[in-house]
Amino acid sequence: MPPPFSKQEYGQRLERVRASMASHHLDALVIGDPANMNWLTGFDAWSFYVPQVMLVQHEVPPIWMGRMMDAGAVSLTTWLGPESVRPYGEEYVQRSDVHPMQEVAGFIASERLDGKRIGYEGDSYFFSPKSLACLEAGLPGASWVDAELLVNWCRAVKSEAEIAVMRQASRLVEGAMQTAYANIAPGVRQCDLMAQILSAQVGGNAEFGGDQTALSPLILAGEAASTAHPMWTDEPFGENQTVALELGGTRKRYNAGLARTLQLGRGPQQLFDTASAVEEGLEAVLESIRPGVATGDVHDAWQSVLDKHGLVKESRIGYGIGVGYPPDWGEHTISLRAGEKTVLETGMTLHVMLGMWMDGWGMELSETVVVTSDGVECLTDFERGVHIID
Amino acid sequence: MPPPFSKQEYGQRLERVRASMASHHLDALVIGDPANMNWLTGFDAWSFYVPQVMLVQHEVPPIWMGRMMDAGAVSLTTWLGPESVRPYGEEYVQRSDVHPMQEVAGFIASERLDGKRIGYEGDSYFFSPKSLACLEAGLPGASWVDAELLVNWCRAVKSEAEIAVMRQASRLVEGAMQTAYANIAPGVRQCDLMAQILSAQVGGNAEFGGDQTALSPLILAGEAASTAHPMWTDEPFGENQTVALELGGTRKRYNAGLARTLQLGRGPQQLFDTASAVEEGLEAVLESIRPGVATGDVHDAWQSVLDKHGLVKESRIGYGIGVGYPPDWGEHTISLRAGEKTVLETGMTLHVMLGMWMDGWGMELSETVVVTSDGVECLTDFERGVHIID
Repeated sequence: MPPPFSKQEYGQRLERVRASMASHHLDALVIGDPANMNWLTGFDAWSFYVPQVMLVQHEVPPIWMGRMMDAGAVSLTTWLGPESVRPYGEEYVQRSDVHPMQEVAGFIASERLDGKRIGYEGDSYFFSPKSLACLEAGLPGASWVDAELLVNWCRAVKSEAEIAVMRQASRLVEGAMQTAYANIAPGVRQCDLMAQILSAQVGGNAEFGGDQTALSPLILAGEAASTAHPMWTDEPFGENQTVALELGGTRKRYNAGLARTLQLGRGPQQLFDTASAVEEGLEAVLESIRPGVATGDVHDAWQSVLDKHGLVKESRIGYGIGVGYPPDWGEHTISLRAGEKTVLETGMTLHVMLGMWMDGWGMELSETVVVTSDGVECLTDFERGVHIID
Repeated sequence: MPPPFSKQEYGQRLERVRASMASHHLDALVIGDPANMNWLTGFDAWSFYVPQVMLVQHEVPPIWMGRMMDAGAVSLTTWLGPESVRPYGEEYVQRSDVHPMQEVAGFIASERLDGKRIGYEGDSYFFSPKSLACLEAGLPGASWVDAELLVNWCRAVKSEAEIAVMRQASRLVEGAMQTAYANIAPGVRQCDLMAQILSAQVGGNAEFGGDQTALSPLILAGEAASTAHPMWTDEPFGENQTVALELGGTRKRYNAGLARTLQLGRGPQQLFDTASAVEEGLEAVLESIRPGVATGDVHDAWQSVLDKHGLVKESRIGYGIGVGYPPDWGEHTISLRAGEKTVLETGMTLHVMLGMWMDGWGMELSETVVVTSDGVECLTDFERGVHIID
């Protein structure tokens, strides 16, 4: 399987990162986030459970540094050559007296980077305080700088090729949601519905299958519906239960999210009233999205509808979405939230996520969208109203 | 759904952690690892994608500190009361100018812990350098100590109730492997087999279903078989392909792992010779496991069989297994590796994992086991030989 994008496209991404590194006066960048590693090079393996990084410099190709038994994934999933592989030995794995990042520090030092200004990702999932301390100790002359979301911001605007992959991810999540609609009923166990959802997400269709979604699929039903990210259980769905589903479809590690609400039997009028207001709010949000608009202004469009209906929602209503491994498909950059100043650009992809977690029940409605030259396009396409199962 | 274990059992776990804290002279411990939070209190939600911690002190119950919209998961999944909930507001989520751990630092300071000796988990997945820096800045008078695997080590010996749950997890992974055996064939796409595997893992049986496994299910086939943790693809299985599967079953977040090797059609003699040696090696490993034996001695039993057959394996042959969220079910404590000094105790659970990643092909054989008072018991029970699909 060749990498999902052309050598040329990865080359353009690398230049984008290097330009940002230059503007931050960085001689090198240590990437710990597996989503950033994947976006930049295609690297794809379940190897981030042990310390690994991708080292980016200005003059030579990115270099993967990770566990020996995972080194084969470089040639398998990227365009990088053998000069881009620095494996550490098995003797470094999960021992109290040594740490893999001690060896990695040596690899980085051998690139003549001690004394240089090196960025790291200080708030990503798989780069620990201990890892950072090992690098600092191993290159004491370097100036270590938290580069924060440098790479994540480079990912915000998607290419046509990326959007094509996200369209496929959208087909996968639509199929998963349709499967849920077709199989949910009072008495069905949550785990059995989830088994069918997972099967649809991954089995996909005749043309392509899916990957594991970065966010776990979520079922909000019964007492769990008042919290945002509960785990599924063995409990059967109940009579007259309101059920919100937040599902994903993932293709080549690109995620599309889709949330919908179902009513098993008779539902409270409050649900339908809230759902109607939220649908109106979604329309207002989509109307407001276009290049040049600030994300705070998009939130204002939503807030004006909420105010009209006397509803309150404290959390943001969307975020950038794209490449992601567990536990998150959000890019941690763009937020649709009051007062935010990020200006939308053509090619940005967002998960517009309207979750209302009320006292004892919840409803959700979302779309994965792309900002177009003159507005917005929903990548996901699925009936929006509360779906009633009689 | 009540927590999976009794109040009394969680109380015993807490006392075990407090005793270890006392021996490390810690006044408090900040737990960032969601597996440790779950083991200690039952807390279970997909909320670890934003910063959250569990604060453990000697005199008051553990306190969860996390995102407002996830606070409901405390009463939903633990025995803890409302006094154990400190939510931070939505205004802290994924913004460049503030960080949730600034607010959390305030929560910790309000427990009168500034000036005290506080442990943190410096090498866990979901506690970042930035999070640590925020806590240090917010409690400048505290002495911050890397407590490393303090809680993980408390988890090493399992109770009877935990082993009962791991038996259920073992039934789940056996079912998943049986599903794979029944459906794999040349021409079947990897993603379609994986869809069936996931469905079996989660749908479970009439008595109970499963959770998402902490390690992604792995298919080693074709060129991907020479690396240890490749991701599945859309490619069909080939004629005469050797396929290794490393699968899990997960019940109440407790994982059981099982790896097996299949041959589609005719296989090379080298595979069967290697498999035969590995089966002999597994028997030797199981013979050697009993309370009082050092894990390095278990590895010696394996090595003697490898030496006899002229085989080489560089990586360890097993590790502690139990509660886990993605990306790992290993406990990062016990390793079956040459020279290791950890002494086995009754109730320790291990994934004995014999992976031979050769040049261009690979085979795997594993069992999840528990150390008993006089030896070892395999929790997983599945035909061990290379399975030939004609």
